[in-house]
Amino acid sequence: MAAGRLMAAEMAEQPAVLRRLLEEGAPRIREVAARIADRAPRFVLLTGRGTSDNAALYAKYLLEILLGKPCGLTSMSTTTAYAARPDLTDCLVIAVSQSGGSPDLVASTAAARRAGGITLAVTNNADSPLARAAEFHIDVLAGPERALPATKTYTAELLALYLFVEGLRGGDGAASARQLPGLAEEILARHEEVRRLAGRYRFAERMVLTSRGYGYPTAKEAALKLMETSYIPALSYSGADLLHGPLAMVDNVSPVIAIVTDGRGGQALRPVLDRLRDRGADLVVIGPKAEVEAASAGFALPTEGVPEELQPILEILPLQLLAHEVTLARGQDPDAPRALSKVTETR
Amino acid sequence: MAAGRLMAAEMAEQPAVLRRLLEEGAPRIREVAARIADRAPRFVLLTGRGTSDNAALYAKYLLEILLGKPCGLTSMSTTTAYAARPDLTDCLVIAVSQSGGSPDLVASTAAARRAGGITLAVTNNADSPLARAAEFHIDVLAGPERALPATKTYTAELLALYLFVEGLRGGDGAASARQLPGLAEEILARHEEVRRLAGRYRFAERMVLTSRGYGYPTAKEAALKLMETSYIPALSYSGADLLHGPLAMVDNVSPVIAIVTDGRGGQALRPVLDRLRDRGADLVVIGPKAEVEAASAGFALPTEGVPEELQPILEILPLQLLAHEVTLARGQDPDAPRALSKVTETR
Repeated sequence: MAAGRLMAAEMAEQPAVLRRLLEEGAPRIREVAARIADRAPRFVLLTGRGTSDNAALYAKYLLEILLGKPCGLTSMSTTTAYAARPDLTDCLVIAVSQSGGSPDLVASTAAARRAGGITLAVTNNADSPLARAAEFHIDVLAGPERALPATKTYTAELLALYLFVEGLRGGDGAASARQLPGLAEEILARHEEVRRLAGRYRFAERMVLTSRGYGYPTAKEAALKLMETSYIPALSYSGADLLHGPLAMVDNVSPVIAIVTDGRGGQALRPVLDRLRDRGADLVVIGPKAEVEAASAGFALPTEGVPEELQPILEILPLQLLAHEVTLARGQDPDAPRALSKVTETR
Repeated sequence: MAAGRLMAAEMAEQPAVLRRLLEEGAPRIREVAARIADRAPRFVLLTGRGTSDNAALYAKYLLEILLGKPCGLTSMSTTTAYAARPDLTDCLVIAVSQSGGSPDLVASTAAARRAGGITLAVTNNADSPLARAAEFHIDVLAGPERALPATKTYTAELLALYLFVEGLRGGDGAASARQLPGLAEEILARHEEVRRLAGRYRFAERMVLTSRGYGYPTAKEAALKLMETSYIPALSYSGADLLHGPLAMVDNVSPVIAIVTDGRGGQALRPVLDRLRDRGADLVVIGPKAEVEAASAGFALPTEGVPEELQPILEILPLQLLAHEVTLARGQDPDAPRALSKVTETR
């Protein structure tokens, strides 16, 4: 089989997966959200590993901004290694996992349930141990994922979490998200454009990804995707953190990719972009057309009329393609990352 | 002035700073902790940028493990860029900042106070805007910090946060921490050992730092220190996350530094270390003697009789020295990182 075929096939499935989730998944997600809303959680703890941790971070932004709920990402070792048993009354505890099979997630979710938390598992496998360990379950309906670099399950997790948070506040998320599958198709069809961008990273020794607000999980996920396929050290920072140290590392040998959402996150990133331009950084922008034109190069996203909180579901697509293309350009196989197995059994 | 003098001088001050904090700072910290304990916070949100964010992460482990409080690290842009106004009743909101001058921290702390949170600023400047914005203030008493890479304020923040959390649970943290200044002196005197270690990174193009549990903030802080002084892309991962993707990047050209605490965190890291050894990774261990002996090289820490939760205050010291030495070995000046200014004004 040609290099990267598995990953390419699953990236291409994304419009269909999003559509399925909107049509078949949304009613059940709304129902779960309504039952959890009745319990009026005051705080939310989120857990995931790798790609699913980036999806959890996206949900944290949604919950804080749209719902005003204080949130935290759990440090799983506090329960699994140190046996901490916090009082989780009034806490919603969300575990996100493609496979639903990581023993540490299952253990920490079971512990959270015993500690009084309202537990919700978001997985791609309704029969998984994690789905059974949690009181509530949301299935992201992405179908079996065979490629090691997760792509379709990431965007499916994002959309499922969006629909869930919209459901918590009694809204109809499915209506605002209706245009996503079509826009995802449009973006994925532009792989030639991404291939041209990929050329500039063929010999890169490092990359820096940055964003702010809703785009920050995209920066983290894109860095993970680039690293696990191409092995280029890809560092991700929120724009504000970038100015606190790592900026010293950005110079004409450290290309920067900025994810600029069309909205407040993108506005907050602007001073960081100006500083990068002042330093003569090689700046590639994934974002609205005007921002791309002010950069060294980029990929213009069709964000018009797409609420900022939904843009992450589109932003990651050209970056998944980029990881795939950069890896091929470097003579490696995106389907065969060294050292990875699909279910990571940390305890 | 010789390259790196400023940073060297401030690293060397650390035993004295820790001693001052234990002698002069502890009573006031205990008092603040007692007043906050009376308000019985149920959840804790922590905020910082750069080095102080790593100190905040350390406090998160303390609060979760020792106190059983669910915690979150805030995504500051949710309040500053998106104007989220969560209900913070029963929430303790801790902002950590050396200068106490970052406008975004001041704004988010003021907003947290208006939203009903119990606000605490931990800074190195009692007259700073952040100290004034918060209801409570803890001074880390580290004296003026002139070097751009923060060193003494990091260990001072860690100790202050430890004393605070001990105070919250009515303990006498100062007694358990009494041995730290002497041990810190011992470690800092071993700079020749660190200089020899530094040789192996002189031509490194990347580095990976890993740990688990209490040592994880050390991994993040060491990566930041290495990057902001030597510009080597230094990636930090919790041991569990390392197995979820970035491991593909670890091979015989990516040296790994593992911070192995003497305790449960170190035990939980062991399977990760085994996996790294299986892959033939160049593994340097900062930790107990036995762990160092099983690795390619390392720096043995005097951890005997030091509670695991206090070890981070010692673990970072050889890594600060390492950042300093690696930078000198590469012909650069640790005191003059490109592009950094001491107070970073993100909004």
